[in-house]
Amino acid sequence: MKDSSNTNRRSFIKKAGTSLAAASTLGVAACSPEAKKDVNINFNKTYHWKMTTTWPPNFPVVGEGCKMLAEWVKQMSGGRMEITVYGGGELIPALEGFDAVSNGAVEMNHGAAYYWAGKLAAAPFFTTVPFGMNAQQMGSWIISGGGQQLWEELYAPFDLQPFICGNTGMQMGGWFNKKINTIEDLKGLKMRMPGLGGKVLAQAGGTPMLVSGGEIYTNLERGVIDATEWIGPYHDYKMGFHQVAKYYYSPGWHEPGPVLEMIVNKSKFQELPADLQEIIKTACYRLNRWMMAEFDAKNGEYLHKILQVPEVEVLPFPDEVLMGLKQATDSVLADLTAQDTMSARVYEAYGKFRKQIKSWMDIGEKLFYEQVG
Amino acid sequence: MKDSSNTNRRSFIKKAGTSLAAASTLGVAACSPEAKKDVNINFNKTYHWKMTTTWPPNFPVVGEGCKMLAEWVKQMSGGRMEITVYGGGELIPALEGFDAVSNGAVEMNHGAAYYWAGKLAAAPFFTTVPFGMNAQQMGSWIISGGGQQLWEELYAPFDLQPFICGNTGMQMGGWFNKKINTIEDLKGLKMRMPGLGGKVLAQAGGTPMLVSGGEIYTNLERGVIDATEWIGPYHDYKMGFHQVAKYYYSPGWHEPGPVLEMIVNKSKFQELPADLQEIIKTACYRLNRWMMAEFDAKNGEYLHKILQVPEVEVLPFPDEVLMGLKQATDSVLADLTAQDTMSARVYEAYGKFRKQIKSWMDIGEKLFYEQVG
Repeated sequence: MKDSSNTNRRSFIKKAGTSLAAASTLGVAACSPEAKKDVNINFNKTYHWKMTTTWPPNFPVVGEGCKMLAEWVKQMSGGRMEITVYGGGELIPALEGFDAVSNGAVEMNHGAAYYWAGKLAAAPFFTTVPFGMNAQQMGSWIISGGGQQLWEELYAPFDLQPFICGNTGMQMGGWFNKKINTIEDLKGLKMRMPGLGGKVLAQAGGTPMLVSGGEIYTNLERGVIDATEWIGPYHDYKMGFHQVAKYYYSPGWHEPGPVLEMIVNKSKFQELPADLQEIIKTACYRLNRWMMAEFDAKNGEYLHKILQVPEVEVLPFPDEVLMGLKQATDSVLADLTAQDTMSARVYEAYGKFRKQIKSWMDIGEKLFYEQVG
Repeated sequence: MKDSSNTNRRSFIKKAGTSLAAASTLGVAACSPEAKKDVNINFNKTYHWKMTTTWPPNFPVVGEGCKMLAEWVKQMSGGRMEITVYGGGELIPALEGFDAVSNGAVEMNHGAAYYWAGKLAAAPFFTTVPFGMNAQQMGSWIISGGGQQLWEELYAPFDLQPFICGNTGMQMGGWFNKKINTIEDLKGLKMRMPGLGGKVLAQAGGTPMLVSGGEIYTNLERGVIDATEWIGPYHDYKMGFHQVAKYYYSPGWHEPGPVLEMIVNKSKFQELPADLQEIIKTACYRLNRWMMAEFDAKNGEYLHKILQVPEVEVLPFPDEVLMGLKQATDSVLADLTAQDTMSARVYEAYGKFRKQIKSWMDIGEKLFYEQVG
């Protein structure tokens, strides 16, 4: 890396200076649209906001992080902004956050865009798509690659402002009661798998089942389902799946780095004083950063525990199985983009960015994992 | 992934609830040590702080990001905190930030811990070590794996509070005027390479040279040096190295994801009202997140430009070369940890965390890059 310890660095500065002074200004403007606005803040007014979430109360990392965010906002605002966090079902049903924030019943909701796929077919592209980008790549697309603008456009008709606000990192492929050697082994397999992943599984001949968190363990134990995906080693271990399924597969082809979102009622957000707007935005970025760190640390710790369970085998999916699932994914995405104009636009932008970052990752992170990591 | 749409999720909540309510409290406490403090803020007082940096003024992404951070802090504080950002050499020489913040001449400095290796042998572990952890792993270690606590302990005698505040991501291995086929090809090679990487190069028979940013291009053109590392495709392209060197190697074995730091004078930080402390901390996390996204996006874009230069070959280092450099690294690190107790302690903690996260990455991110990405 570089430093600028030597005073004779004029040629570089000269070279860099012209275009980069402009870039710097643009950077600031893009990230702080309110920067030039007159600030006229009433420091005596306290805002009481409600944050609903799609997670069970105190859900590890994710729900926990939401409470941390509320605390950061309170601190940063000198107590002028109090956010009360509700677990899914505590104030409204877990998956009604989109409507509740849209109509102003609550001010914000933490969840994931793909939960709104029924309303907005293009929403999953802002969380994760099977065989799509991982957490690092998704973050780069949304923050620095134009993803944020498309996301805002998608949500604008609903008076919603989205922020990137977390990522589970790579997920695991799930727990199975038999070995998966070929794509044929998925035929007829009853697997708990929601979203696009479930559609892909169906395309490959499996039977995706919708089973809520609290019922998976029992359903797996009793053979009501043959397999389930959940999140990663930390959450999976806490669910006890290692007690009722023998084979734990990787990678989580269906969710290779899901982005979590904070949606805020846009009108209410814009009515906030500029300082509180920036505080919320910055807290979302911080939670995004913290969550990734925490997931990786905890997943490492709990994978170790799972590897010590003698009854469990941790296995990679065979290439043939992944190739079959990838073909099924292409087919599902082709249908989706053929049926919905916005999905087609978003997927095109997503694909263009992905191609560009992939060539960098191929000689960067990928090479690191192959040769160094 | 999961949702909690179904109301019958009690068994999971029951299971998760006990330990996690505790974890949640710990999480908040760890990240917001000031959370319980009485807030008694004088909203009329404005703080004017100085931030020096080790980067040339307006340095892309990094210097640019420092100015964005100052703007975020200004916004979040409602104009109560004004930070003036200085490029390296503008107020003090670039590499005197550590002393200047320590003695209170300036309040904060943005740079990288390994610049202070001369004072603190253990400092490089908080930036990057050759063949060490990448950006994602370093972030997890510092934020969630105990790295932050060791870093604070290392800096405490100097009245410095460190924050993780950026990462360049994977670097490139550098520009060479000849092909590197075997470890023998490094013998006698004059290469611009500072820090531990330079020591490793020397161990492998090369000649590390210290050349400041502004002189590298000319030195490479005139054959004063045979090779140079810098950062990655974006910054390297802007330096014009593709005009004066033919071979561009990957990966950046010497710097696989350097953490950038913000150091703040601890006494002055603690004198700030609690809201401004939390604002600075949160802004550092946001910059950390933004910088990684921006580096990846820009590196993707500029690698594409470099690949279109017909005279340049982009090549991976042969395995044999990397193995030789890895051996040299082991030797350099063994010397370092034998000579310095704190280095030994930090490297042990680093190694322990790395082992744990590596087993997770092996079946997570690594498998993603091999089979999906």
